[in-house]
Amino acid sequence: MSKYKYLKELVYEANMEIPKEELAIVTFGNVSGVDRAEGIVAIKPSGVPYHKLRVEDIVIVDMDNMLVEGKLRPSSDTKTHTLLYKNFPSIGGVCHTHSTYAVAWAQAMKPIPNLGTTHADHLTSSIPVTDVMSDEMILLDYEMETGNQILDTFRKGSLNPDEVEMVLVACHGPFTWGNDPAKAVYNSIVLEEIAKMAFLTLQINPNITSIKQSLIDKHYFRKHGKDAYYGQGC
Amino acid sequence: MSKYKYLKELVYEANMEIPKEELAIVTFGNVSGVDRAEGIVAIKPSGVPYHKLRVEDIVIVDMDNMLVEGKLRPSSDTKTHTLLYKNFPSIGGVCHTHSTYAVAWAQAMKPIPNLGTTHADHLTSSIPVTDVMSDEMILLDYEMETGNQILDTFRKGSLNPDEVEMVLVACHGPFTWGNDPAKAVYNSIVLEEIAKMAFLTLQINPNITSIKQSLIDKHYFRKHGKDAYYGQGC
Amino acid sequence: MSKYKYLKELVYEANMEIPKEELAIVTFGNVSGVDRAEGIVAIKPSGVPYHKLRVEDIVIVDMDNMLVEGKLRPSSDTKTHTLLYKNFPSIGGVCHTHSTYAVAWAQAMKPIPNLGTTHADHLTSSIPVTDVMSDEMILLDYEMETGNQILDTFRKGSLNPDEVEMVLVACHGPFTWGNDPAKAVYNSIVLEEIAKMAFLTLQINPNITSIKQSLIDKHYFRKHGKDAYYGQGC
Amino acid sequence: MSKYKYLKELVYEANMEIPKEELAIVTFGNVSGVDRAEGIVAIKPSGVPYHKLRVEDIVIVDMDNMLVEGKLRPSSDTKTHTLLYKNFPSIGGVCHTHSTYAVAWAQAMKPIPNLGTTHADHLTSSIPVTDVMSDEMILLDYEMETGNQILDTFRKGSLNPDEVEMVLVACHGPFTWGNDPAKAVYNSIVLEEIAKMAFLTLQINPNITSIKQSLIDKHYFRKHGKDAYYGQGC
Repeated sequence: MSKYKYLKELVYEANMEIPKEELAIVTFGNVSGVDRAEGIVAIKPSGVPYHKLRVEDIVIVDMDNMLVEGKLRPSSDTKTHTLLYKNFPSIGGVCHTHSTYAVAWAQAMKPIPNLGTTHADHLTSSIPVTDVMSDEMILLDYEMETGNQILDTFRKGSLNPDEVEMVLVACHGPFTWGNDPAKAVYNSIVLEEIAKMAFLTLQINPNITSIKQSLIDKHYFRKHGKDAYYGQGC
Repeated sequence: MSKYKYLKELVYEANMEIPKEELAIVTFGNVSGVDRAEGIVAIKPSGVPYHKLRVEDIVIVDMDNMLVEGKLRPSSDTKTHTLLYKNFPSIGGVCHTHSTYAVAWAQAMKPIPNLGTTHADHLTSSIPVTDVMSDEMILLDYEMETGNQILDTFRKGSLNPDEVEMVLVACHGPFTWGNDPAKAVYNSIVLEEIAKMAFLTLQINPNITSIKQSLIDKHYFRKHGKDAYYGQGC
Repeated sequence: MSKYKYLKELVYEANMEIPKEELAIVTFGNVSGVDRAEGIVAIKPSGVPYHKLRVEDIVIVDMDNMLVEGKLRPSSDTKTHTLLYKNFPSIGGVCHTHSTYAVAWAQAMKPIPNLGTTHADHLTSSIPVTDVMSDEMILLDYEMETGNQILDTFRKGSLNPDEVEMVLVACHGPFTWGNDPAKAVYNSIVLEEIAKMAFLTLQINPNITSIKQSLIDKHYFRKHGKDAYYGQGC
Repeated sequence: MSKYKYLKELVYEANMEIPKEELAIVTFGNVSGVDRAEGIVAIKPSGVPYHKLRVEDIVIVDMDNMLVEGKLRPSSDTKTHTLLYKNFPSIGGVCHTHSTYAVAWAQAMKPIPNLGTTHADHLTSSIPVTDVMSDEMILLDYEMETGNQILDTFRKGSLNPDEVEMVLVACHGPFTWGNDPAKAVYNSIVLEEIAKMAFLTLQINPNITSIKQSLIDKHYFRKHGKDAYYGQGC
């Protein structure tokens, strides 16, 4: 029996949330989880439809994307996942979807402004969008460079990946992460809802920009940090 | 056995309508019910996902938000609920959701105009939106001030909470109420549908303002008051 | 046992399609069926939620809206239904919903232009919208006048109710009909889809007006009339 | 027992995906499959609702649209299907739906621009829209001419039907194809999602045109052709 069975099960369960929550159609999307002590990542195999996916199909690779265990080829986005794990040291899971409204913002190449408390409950900034990749980056090592674009966006924007757990890759779609695979998917669910709400808000009133900083801080810090009082504190 | 079991069950059932009717995702939203004779309010615990919620998790607080019964922390919005109960003497239930179209109007900071009989069947005015809270109010006692903003909106607009059973809190989302928890949720369902219809109407024809007063009155009073002839009169 | 049992069952089944097809929320909407030989109409009782509706709750009234059989009050829209039966001699069922996109067009007070073959498969003209009722009509006998507004719209537009089986009542919503209650509901399903398609089409290209007459006629007459070759001809 | 049973089953299963994936309401839409060795096409019967469709109802016609086997009349769109099989020699299945967003683009008479990687994963060009048919073509042999309009669009645009497996027929709706009936339906599912994403993208940012060629090629060729590395290579 695989020594990675526990992680494969978590990653399998998290992947199965994608069709259930309607975050992607057909074979689109993938979730991974990391075991930092073992130095391995468990990830969805490439191109397998969700209704055919089994726990034992989850692929194990090392942090350099080399196959460790599994009969199937890992997701073509694997290099993006491993790069995020290497550079965001506290995250435990990564999720990539093609959810409709988040993709629309990514294709529109616009960050999602912070227009309300649903957004502020989860992060204080806009949801960032990367720059479009150069032709050289696309040709060289596309999936690795997708990760580099994300890192670059966080560096330029002085964003903290422990607070901003989501990003839009321009012309492509969202990546989200969290302390485990389930939390990464949770963030994809929340992102899609925020993306739809922001779309509708600007259709109703195109002059809206952002809510005030004090309201952002109130909502974010009642849910996060040492003074949080939302939830059961466990 | 809890002496509040009957109310916990009503409040539990009403809360479970939120995911069923798709009025909020993940842990968002909360419904409460009041027992005015006992001076207590039953409310959803904070941050518990609906699929894990059980009747015995419903928290009992008094009208000053002090815990009476329950092992979990009550909803972080509890102070808003109790303030509404104290000031709207005939209501028996309060519901707060993050339903998509109602939130979009709240984020757009626009009242929903009365554009048709679906709206007029339920209230004669626009669906009001509060002012944005001052920084001081946000910092001081945010959830209490959310309630105060609602009361202020009703005072300034000379609105009757027995007729207008719904409000949009600016930059946040809807609160609704009714004579019991189930009716409060019913009003959230209706509000979301009215919000979507109004959005689409103005996309099709931006020049539409409000239907005529005689049509509003006809629809409202065929459903409400002493001359009502809609329903089974019981 | 009721001599109208067969019709009550048809009308019950047709009403239950409304929530199943998401043509209205809560208690909104109603379907009726006529037995012209007996001079009676079977219709949904007023304000009863669909999940509580039973076959025996269906109310029987005569063509002058007088109760013939049933313990519940008939739909408040009954007079509109009977007026349509009296004036459209070949129809057997009437359906009224508050389906979202059809209501949006009705609230926008715009007819739905014939923008494609999905529309032309069912009727050659635009889907008409009535005028707004005068204050006098609203006060006098509102539900009867709603029917009169529909008749007036068909008279002024020289529309044939055997071809155009749907109408939008301004500021209110759709009424549809057909040779039996099931066909009336079918037309409400089709109308909602046409209303959504037309909304989206005009958002993508606001300059679109109507498809050409030859294409309208081709699609309508391959499905209707003596030269029809769509379906199984039975 | 029918010698075409295997194909009838495939075509039946593919047709049943249409309501399941919400690609059309009521009786709209149809899927076919070809057996080139036998020179026959299996197709949905005309006007049969999906919930009543059975395997044995699937109709067999030859490449000249003559009935080979079956008690029902074949889809009124049969001539369009057979013409595509005759002219696109490597395809094995054809699917026609009235899916909402794809129809909206067809009614808007606009090709769907390539705005992101969800699109580029499937084809490099825009999704083409045919010209509007002349009155003569509509009157002469409408369904055959619908096929000719598609062929003409591919000829004029120098499009390869093995790469571009989807088209919008102006004022009507989408046709898609693939190497078997299931793949044809898969392409209809993908097309509807791309159509919705493109609609939303242009609502958010009307200035967006197309993603860069290098990104299109990267995504298309990581999934297709000899250097593909997406999926399991089987």
